[in-house]
Amino acid sequence: MITFVQKLNMQKIEHIGIAVKDLDESNQLFEKLLGRPHYKIEEVLSENVRTSFFRTGQSKIELVEATNDQSAIAKYIQKYGEGVHHIAFAVTDIRKEMERLKMEGFRILNEEPKRGADNKLVCFVHPKSANGVLVELCQEITE
Amino acid sequence: MITFVQKLNMQKIEHIGIAVKDLDESNQLFEKLLGRPHYKIEEVLSENVRTSFFRTGQSKIELVEATNDQSAIAKYIQKYGEGVHHIAFAVTDIRKEMERLKMEGFRILNEEPKRGADNKLVCFVHPKSANGVLVELCQEITE
Repeated sequence: MITFVQKLNMQKIEHIGIAVKDLDESNQLFEKLLGRPHYKIEEVLSENVRTSFFRTGQSKIELVEATNDQSAIAKYIQKYGEGVHHIAFAVTDIRKEMERLKMEGFRILNEEPKRGADNKLVCFVHPKSANGVLVELCQEITE
Repeated sequence: MITFVQKLNMQKIEHIGIAVKDLDESNQLFEKLLGRPHYKIEEVLSENVRTSFFRTGQSKIELVEATNDQSAIAKYIQKYGEGVHHIAFAVTDIRKEMERLKMEGFRILNEEPKRGADNKLVCFVHPKSANGVLVELCQEITE
C-alpha cells in the first residue's frame, strides 16, 4: 500500500527549464516556436535568476536567465551553452519523495526543500546520479 | 481564425528524449527515479536506436540508446555525455506546423516528416535556431 502511494507521488512533468542568455530575446523566440506568449515573468532573488513561463498541455516551459555571474545558470551557459537545464516533476509530498529517492541511491542536492519560482517548494537531484539529467522535484505551496 | 487553429496545433510535451549509454541499466535507474516501470521497448532501425518509454502524466520519458556508431545518439553522447537530447511536442498537423515554423525563421532538419518511434511522424528543428534545444514535432499515425 505504501508503495502504491509513493508511486503516485511523482505525477507529471511540471516544467522543463531552459537556460537562456537573454530572456527578452528568448521570450520572442519561444512565442514563435510554441505559437503562444509567455504568461508571466518572475525573478527569484535567492537563485539569481529571472524566469518566464509558457503553458503547453499540463506542463510548462520555463526559460531561465542569470541575473549575475554567481547564478548557476551563468555557470551552466559558460560550460555548455544555452539549452535544456533541468526537468521538473510535480510531487504531492516533496519530503517523502526526497526520502524515497535517497533510499534508492539518488544524490539530493539540497537537504531541505527550498522556495523556487512559481510558488513551489523545490529540490534537485544531482545529474551524476540520474544519467546526466538535472532533475527537480516541485510541490505547490498551498498555505 | 487561421492563427487560432495554428496556435492550437502544438498541444503538449509529447515526450522528453534522453540519450543513454546502456538502455537496460538506464531502464532500472528511471524505474527507481519515476517510481514506475517502462511500458515498452522499441528499436528504430532507420535511426540506429533502441528506445524505451515511461509514462508521466500526459507526457512520456523516452530513453534512447545508440545501436551502432552511426547513430546520432552515439555522436551526441561522445560530444556531450548522457543527458536530455530532445523535447518533442505533439502536433495535430505536422506539415502545417513545419510550414509555420519555417515561416517564423526556424531551420527544419528534414524536409519531409519521417517515421519515428511509437507510431509517430516526426521532424526536428535545428537546435541552433531554438536556443540550443533540439525540438521534435510528432504527429500520431492514425491510418
